[in-house]
Amino acid sequence: MAVYLPAEIGMPLADVDTPCLILELDAFERNLHRLNDSLAGRNIAVRPHAKSHKCPQIALKQIALGAVGVCCQKVSEAEAMVQGRVSDVLIANEVVGVPKLKRLAALAKQARVAVCADDAGNVAALDAAARAFGVRLDVLVEVNVGANRCGVEAGEPAAALARQITSCPNLRFAGLQAYQGAAQHLRKVEERRAAIEAAVAKIKQTTALLAKAGIACDKVTGAGTGTYLFEAVSGVYHEIQPGSYVFMDVDYARNDWTESGIPRFEHSLFVWTTVMSRPSLERAIVDAGLKASSVDSGMPRVASDDGVEFVKASDEHGVLKLNGAKGYVVGEKLKLIPGHCDPTVNLYDYYVCVREGRVEALWPITARGAVW
Amino acid sequence: MAVYLPAEIGMPLADVDTPCLILELDAFERNLHRLNDSLAGRNIAVRPHAKSHKCPQIALKQIALGAVGVCCQKVSEAEAMVQGRVSDVLIANEVVGVPKLKRLAALAKQARVAVCADDAGNVAALDAAARAFGVRLDVLVEVNVGANRCGVEAGEPAAALARQITSCPNLRFAGLQAYQGAAQHLRKVEERRAAIEAAVAKIKQTTALLAKAGIACDKVTGAGTGTYLFEAVSGVYHEIQPGSYVFMDVDYARNDWTESGIPRFEHSLFVWTTVMSRPSLERAIVDAGLKASSVDSGMPRVASDDGVEFVKASDEHGVLKLNGAKGYVVGEKLKLIPGHCDPTVNLYDYYVCVREGRVEALWPITARGAVW
Repeated sequence: MAVYLPAEIGMPLADVDTPCLILELDAFERNLHRLNDSLAGRNIAVRPHAKSHKCPQIALKQIALGAVGVCCQKVSEAEAMVQGRVSDVLIANEVVGVPKLKRLAALAKQARVAVCADDAGNVAALDAAARAFGVRLDVLVEVNVGANRCGVEAGEPAAALARQITSCPNLRFAGLQAYQGAAQHLRKVEERRAAIEAAVAKIKQTTALLAKAGIACDKVTGAGTGTYLFEAVSGVYHEIQPGSYVFMDVDYARNDWTESGIPRFEHSLFVWTTVMSRPSLERAIVDAGLKASSVDSGMPRVASDDGVEFVKASDEHGVLKLNGAKGYVVGEKLKLIPGHCDPTVNLYDYYVCVREGRVEALWPITARGAVW
Repeated sequence: MAVYLPAEIGMPLADVDTPCLILELDAFERNLHRLNDSLAGRNIAVRPHAKSHKCPQIALKQIALGAVGVCCQKVSEAEAMVQGRVSDVLIANEVVGVPKLKRLAALAKQARVAVCADDAGNVAALDAAARAFGVRLDVLVEVNVGANRCGVEAGEPAAALARQITSCPNLRFAGLQAYQGAAQHLRKVEERRAAIEAAVAKIKQTTALLAKAGIACDKVTGAGTGTYLFEAVSGVYHEIQPGSYVFMDVDYARNDWTESGIPRFEHSLFVWTTVMSRPSLERAIVDAGLKASSVDSGMPRVASDDGVEFVKASDEHGVLKLNGAKGYVVGEKLKLIPGHCDPTVNLYDYYVCVREGRVEALWPITARGAVW
């Protein structure tokens, strides 16, 4: 419902009003290439997670560089991607309830769509929805590989659900969804590596049972920005799903990356903000609070490396502790690095895409608010 | 950019898809009346804060019940209110930068608009913008009454800024903005009362200086849901600005209200969610995570009082610890009470307004995302 566009093409960044979401295109493009370079020579498909960016333009750039398609978390997110000309979407999540199953089956008439399941009743409902729309749906079994969120347990429970899917006339068993979400922000490389080794063991246990039952498992898919190279070299994963690497937020930057083999992705996403009050020598207030930069994973960070701390966010205000830094006069604009990129993106309707200090494009975040 | 409406009028709540934002109209209307009843016989104006609801329909209902207008935090929020036929808006915040000042001055041609200031340079810029648009702007001095966010210090600094405003030909000094935001969530009644007593002392010190300088101070405005009655009986506040009372979130419900005189407002705002996975006896996963219910002030609460805890939110998942509760089968829908209503509302495009289990209306949240 945004009445105004946040900027004009060609405008100097200095003139762009605040708060808005800035994407630094050079850093963003380097991140896309860094991911590819880190996988050179590996036989692994890349299916980036679109929940991070919610933007078909970004998805199409990822696909142009070799990605096989994207992941989404919600049917509405997948709809936004397909409307934006993305032709291959995996909903890396369960879809529950008749209205959503209808939309899912209808979407499968327009694009290649796959979905996950971890429940026998849900598999039956997927089969019924696919039959009603005359489509055959690809269904992956989500396996709990250590995150203890959704997913059936590895081994026999996963194999049993795969057998059920193969018995459904309107479904195709399309593999295993094996995302270890709890591993992504373990700070030490060795902890993350060990978590993925444990996940790999669970997958091997499951695929052995599937092989014994004569069920082909074409695809094991999972992984995030924190671990994707460990999955890529595991020998059991066929596809990886990193999302945050395109932007790199403060929370991911807290991870240790040394000798992980995973490149240092750059911060490319920023909240552009203005000093709106300078009530004391030590305190400046900016116009970006928690409605402008999500604080679920901690405060944003001031991008300039001058010792200034973003110490507190209220709805529409951010409090900076200046620690003696110069400047920060009323009206001055600065960049914040979001604490967590995904929910921050979800607060905005547009990326203001900037190169060398000028607005080059506005990319609509068409899956903003697509929670259902 | 929502393609689908979240519900149809007349639909049973049970059929409404999830996640969505539900407003229980009976509880909401009782909250509106409770506020009025608690102020009966007091000579105090009510100017509810629209940053909580971001919805002109709700603002107009508050005004129909006697509110003098609304507060906003941002020019874009004020624009949404004026577009929704609200004719009196106080931006209870500083507005900085030429583009916003132009919009503010333009808006003052369409509605009664006031704004706050805490900086001499900003006052000069307000005067210039008002002159350029041929309007006279009402400007309040924001005083730091203890929140240590924006605002000039009480006493001489506040009086000096008021004198500057009175000297500007295109501005009118319209009073003091004196919101003690840090007091609202102090848990004990006595702590909140003491914080407002301290704020009142700062205001008295300031108004005495104004009187000595011959500057009329028509209005002292401030207060939130946690303290508004203390301001209302103080003898120095003319107007109160509560916002959250219409919805009442988990964080406000943690306050002690006993013998405060402030009524127990009911929870009227809920996130409607579905159990999407039931991976173990003790764990259920719902389809509302931190993109569906803001966690900046803690997790949402399961509305049914059955011992179930919402223990963790990721982007699109909520983890419930069942503690032996019955039910919570895949597909079951339930209500969550948001941890913090304001940023949760900002995630949605519509309120699904429900009465006696049926959808009665959809109210668009036209100031959703209005951060600039």
